[in-house]
Amino acid sequence: MSNSPPEPPPLLAFGAHPDDIEFGCGGVIARETRAGRRTHFVICSRGEAGSHGTPARRVREARKAAAVLGATVEFIKLDGDGRLEIQAAHAVKLAGVLRRVRPGIILAPSLVENQHPDHWRLGKLVRDAARLARYGGLKELRGKKPHAIGQLFYYAVTPEAEPRDLTPVWIDVSAPEIVAAWTAAMAAHATQTSARNYIELQLTRARLLGMRAGISHAIALFPGDPLVLDSLAQVGRGARRF
Amino acid sequence: MSNSPPEPPPLLAFGAHPDDIEFGCGGVIARETRAGRRTHFVICSRGEAGSHGTPARRVREARKAAAVLGATVEFIKLDGDGRLEIQAAHAVKLAGVLRRVRPGIILAPSLVENQHPDHWRLGKLVRDAARLARYGGLKELRGKKPHAIGQLFYYAVTPEAEPRDLTPVWIDVSAPEIVAAWTAAMAAHATQTSARNYIELQLTRARLLGMRAGISHAIALFPGDPLVLDSLAQVGRGARRF
Amino acid sequence: MSNSPPEPPPLLAFGAHPDDIEFGCGGVIARETRAGRRTHFVICSRGEAGSHGTPARRVREARKAAAVLGATVEFIKLDGDGRLEIQAAHAVKLAGVLRRVRPGIILAPSLVENQHPDHWRLGKLVRDAARLARYGGLKELRGKKPHAIGQLFYYAVTPEAEPRDLTPVWIDVSAPEIVAAWTAAMAAHATQTSARNYIELQLTRARLLGMRAGISHAIALFPGDPLVLDSLAQVGRGARRF
Amino acid sequence: MSNSPPEPPPLLAFGAHPDDIEFGCGGVIARETRAGRRTHFVICSRGEAGSHGTPARRVREARKAAAVLGATVEFIKLDGDGRLEIQAAHAVKLAGVLRRVRPGIILAPSLVENQHPDHWRLGKLVRDAARLARYGGLKELRGKKPHAIGQLFYYAVTPEAEPRDLTPVWIDVSAPEIVAAWTAAMAAHATQTSARNYIELQLTRARLLGMRAGISHAIALFPGDPLVLDSLAQVGRGARRF
Amino acid sequence: MSNSPPEPPPLLAFGAHPDDIEFGCGGVIARETRAGRRTHFVICSRGEAGSHGTPARRVREARKAAAVLGATVEFIKLDGDGRLEIQAAHAVKLAGVLRRVRPGIILAPSLVENQHPDHWRLGKLVRDAARLARYGGLKELRGKKPHAIGQLFYYAVTPEAEPRDLTPVWIDVSAPEIVAAWTAAMAAHATQTSARNYIELQLTRARLLGMRAGISHAIALFPGDPLVLDSLAQVGRGARRF
Amino acid sequence: MSNSPPEPPPLLAFGAHPDDIEFGCGGVIARETRAGRRTHFVICSRGEAGSHGTPARRVREARKAAAVLGATVEFIKLDGDGRLEIQAAHAVKLAGVLRRVRPGIILAPSLVENQHPDHWRLGKLVRDAARLARYGGLKELRGKKPHAIGQLFYYAVTPEAEPRDLTPVWIDVSAPEIVAAWTAAMAAHATQTSARNYIELQLTRARLLGMRAGISHAIALFPGDPLVLDSLAQVGRGARRF
Repeated sequence: MSNSPPEPPPLLAFGAHPDDIEFGCGGVIARETRAGRRTHFVICSRGEAGSHGTPARRVREARKAAAVLGATVEFIKLDGDGRLEIQAAHAVKLAGVLRRVRPGIILAPSLVENQHPDHWRLGKLVRDAARLARYGGLKELRGKKPHAIGQLFYYAVTPEAEPRDLTPVWIDVSAPEIVAAWTAAMAAHATQTSARNYIELQLTRARLLGMRAGISHAIALFPGDPLVLDSLAQVGRGARRF
Repeated sequence: MSNSPPEPPPLLAFGAHPDDIEFGCGGVIARETRAGRRTHFVICSRGEAGSHGTPARRVREARKAAAVLGATVEFIKLDGDGRLEIQAAHAVKLAGVLRRVRPGIILAPSLVENQHPDHWRLGKLVRDAARLARYGGLKELRGKKPHAIGQLFYYAVTPEAEPRDLTPVWIDVSAPEIVAAWTAAMAAHATQTSARNYIELQLTRARLLGMRAGISHAIALFPGDPLVLDSLAQVGRGARRF
Repeated sequence: MSNSPPEPPPLLAFGAHPDDIEFGCGGVIARETRAGRRTHFVICSRGEAGSHGTPARRVREARKAAAVLGATVEFIKLDGDGRLEIQAAHAVKLAGVLRRVRPGIILAPSLVENQHPDHWRLGKLVRDAARLARYGGLKELRGKKPHAIGQLFYYAVTPEAEPRDLTPVWIDVSAPEIVAAWTAAMAAHATQTSARNYIELQLTRARLLGMRAGISHAIALFPGDPLVLDSLAQVGRGARRF
Repeated sequence: MSNSPPEPPPLLAFGAHPDDIEFGCGGVIARETRAGRRTHFVICSRGEAGSHGTPARRVREARKAAAVLGATVEFIKLDGDGRLEIQAAHAVKLAGVLRRVRPGIILAPSLVENQHPDHWRLGKLVRDAARLARYGGLKELRGKKPHAIGQLFYYAVTPEAEPRDLTPVWIDVSAPEIVAAWTAAMAAHATQTSARNYIELQLTRARLLGMRAGISHAIALFPGDPLVLDSLAQVGRGARRF
Repeated sequence: MSNSPPEPPPLLAFGAHPDDIEFGCGGVIARETRAGRRTHFVICSRGEAGSHGTPARRVREARKAAAVLGATVEFIKLDGDGRLEIQAAHAVKLAGVLRRVRPGIILAPSLVENQHPDHWRLGKLVRDAARLARYGGLKELRGKKPHAIGQLFYYAVTPEAEPRDLTPVWIDVSAPEIVAAWTAAMAAHATQTSARNYIELQLTRARLLGMRAGISHAIALFPGDPLVLDSLAQVGRGARRF
Repeated sequence: MSNSPPEPPPLLAFGAHPDDIEFGCGGVIARETRAGRRTHFVICSRGEAGSHGTPARRVREARKAAAVLGATVEFIKLDGDGRLEIQAAHAVKLAGVLRRVRPGIILAPSLVENQHPDHWRLGKLVRDAARLARYGGLKELRGKKPHAIGQLFYYAVTPEAEPRDLTPVWIDVSAPEIVAAWTAAMAAHATQTSARNYIELQLTRARLLGMRAGISHAIALFPGDPLVLDSLAQVGRGARRF
């Protein structure tokens, strides 16, 4: 037991609303937690501008969904649902979270602007925060040791949010228990799924990628910076079956 | 020994001229062969249109360079140096090579057209060949079992050839013995390196990426299709240090 | 009856293989023929390089599928399946077809090169043919009156073939009888659909667009040139529901 | 008369300055109002930072120009000319306007950033407002029924503002009375046209597109989301004459 | 007189048809010849596929236009009007021209494919020829000393041919005598200008750029490679007046 | 002496931190000042969020570096290091600087967002300021005569910041005294260069461009708007040697 491999650094996922992580990349979360990686969610509003569900209920739904996926969750306050702004103070605050959680990989909503205005703004704040977390001199962060993440991946909450200028990686989420956990996590957001077919939308997206890759389901993530690899052995599968 | 892991499928690299593979991605080759992967080179001209070196001498240089890198090498005839054309028969011929070698990963010159006219044409032929190798009915290929590669990566022989619309992966080639083998393989092309500073060019490119990634040297490869990954554990390092 | 509206000019669709039109945009065809537009298919190989089905059988399947969709069909010979090349003589030949059929709208495979090598080559030949059809002096076309099409739209046989640099139009194919006719036309290609899940792939693509637009199913087409409109009344619906 | 067709939902155009709509797409406005569509302008400053004309005079010019085009007009206060900022409160305010006017189509300045800084910022605010107008829970908007627009088109006040990544639609504004109304509306902004050749600039742009399409004059609009069409009959004309 | 400055290397312009250079960039030619630079045209067909004018007449028109502009002209045979193909032998032939004329700057049609099929093919052949002209070993070119050009600029015969991914340089052609010479050179192609408003098209394009730059007329050229400058003093004017 | 040429308008460079100008384009500065152009630096923070060096020390380093390069320098206060925001008041403030200094060419950090968050924000503010400086009516700027710059060039502090959608110009900084001055200016920022290999990074970048252009060292600048040229004689060298 003394020579068990060191635990990998945790995965940290950011969502603008209580359901963004689950809908946008819940299958990836299920895949990683089942592989033993600690995962934490940071949710930046309580969904108070949505058409359905009270903030209190939405928080409960998010906690339930995180539990289904095996993640811990916290809520932080920025500007509120539907009114997130790009402010330096927000990026500093998120950098503080990064220094506390000290993740290896972080997930954030994509930067494509033609989507819910909170999504891409949060993505930009997280991207900036990942830099600020490395700089030594920000006075609000004094006492928190600087931290450099390993990689930032963007997820797309909806298809329009998929970046056209970044080559994605596709994560295989085909295992039935992964699909089931993901589906259950989405279903936990009952206030949202009763009104619109979000679950079908996401499973259809994942199925389409899966068919293209010759597997069952896949989710696309978009790397914020080039991947640095030790060897091609890591990336020998490509998506091209038709 | 009965349960030793299966040998991975070989790596197959295509070059339009005797020195393209070494200059464009020789460090990656060195990295892979040293990790135990069988590697084979297919060179599609004898460099007969170059300003320096006879075809016979250039073939000898290529054989020497491949040996330095631990790869096997063969020469095939298409249209000759400086006159490669996009012809269906060429793609079929290359597909035949793919069915014979049955690689997991293939490397080919990038498709950016503003470079030596043979480079991108070969890249396009290889890309098409990777599809034809999968189709059952091509009559020239009867008797050769169809083969589906795992992934196609493009390399850039020169900086102008780096695609702007594909997010690269960077392969860490920092180990001193890798840099040494790569340098020796480039130096084996003595007819070319006496006239121009190709070795310095390539080492400078690799050093620049290395500094950006916080390592010594790296080489960028450009995936032809999205990478399909089992887990984020495979790709947890990103390139951002400044 | 003398003042019935003039019949619109026909729709002309080009396919590289016997099933490309049906899989790529069969729902659009069904929509247009049911609205009374004459539609004609020009198929440029007999699928002789495919893994499944003899040429004779594939021609029969194509005829059946065209009949299901209400289109007429002809086969023309270019270079054969898997070996189509960009040759001026091909473009002139296709221009001759355009002068004979005199369509208003033409459909051709998209120009994205990372797909079956025949697809994009045919798309480029059709694009060039649409210009040559307008020029008066090509000697092979003497005696055939020049013809200017109204618009060229590209279709994507597979998702990888969707252009990223053209804003699509989405055609609503939600009516159950349209989906049924399209499905039947795809199923007519029994040699292809027994081996791979092409029908599911296409219906999944169409369903995903449909959900995004708040309808049942849609198919994306990519205009070759800007659309010229008399009024905004023509284009008052956009795709954004999430 | 009871079965007269329902009036189409109104057109709503946003301008950052008193003359932006007229210069950027006045011909389209003339075309739509003459076809019977109600049109309303929302102008977000009084041009107080311009080199020529007092705010009061510029408001008078804008009212006169709107009258020439057959549109109604209102002025709203955001941050003032030359100092517009992206603020969530502004988007909410514009969403309130959308809920009140309940347009089918909206027009806003393009998002290309290399132009007057107020132009693209207003475009982004309008884009975000179109989403917020659909969401039920924003407390400032309580009591105003949510509204979903049909489509958002961007106009380019100057040529550098034309997006390169969106395929435009070109609106035919060739009718002499349309060109005349447009010209008169531009001329109504006498404080601006005395100093610079704005009218010639715009008519030259429209004439250039017109020649390309084989008509007299055209104006390009850029769809914010893919157009959803019932049939190809709607879009059978393309722009390619040379 | 012994210390008069050395004559600059000549300008070499390639056209696919007898009128392409004049329509696409005739004003630039006029500007350069009037500044004392020797200029030579290479025309690669006799316009035999056009709707108007016999080949003999079109050659006469081209000779007259070149004379008006102060350029010499030659005709070379490739595949003929409307049927140009990308062939290695063509690039080698054009490389031979480059070695003979030994230009500093070359002009060729842009590479955008959505235009006359001969235009972009010639552009690609010229681009490749500029590389082959530098390589020592091509046997057809033995005896012709290798030559490296200074820069390749692309011109756009029509607006659709303007590249969207290259930042242009705009050449000021505002001097009345330049506009007059350009117009006369275009008018020399009487068989073409009687049928279509090509002259108006080109002058409108140039006027539109001129207004944007605060001058009378300008023509955009697109550099094939980054410009290498000795100092910013060379490029201190930018195009932004609105 | 009465007919000495008029002094060119000054060069004005903006930096977000005390060392950005030197690291990003110090060689260009050295080239211009040695050619006799007055150059002024405006630095918008004191580097107070960096990991190394006190603000006071960093200001001293910046003054020393500017002196080495032959430039004058001033510091202005915006939001502070690591917290710069896009605010209209900042753009107005920078526009005031432009009216005071009245430069011909300005240099600002590139707009690519995947870099230090202060860099691109400053670039955007400078771009906007260049417009506001031309407008007559901004009340904070009353009494300062409007000023139109000649051209805005962006520099990239790090390689990730190089725009992919703008064609650069490369400035030849090969002269040994230029490289020496640039190196000395970078070395003046001793607090930064002791911790990281910034100097090697920048010289490697410049050497790589130099090799590509067949010279010693070059620095890429990215024009904010098309260059307007009097003649091709200004731009007859291109970068293509391999």
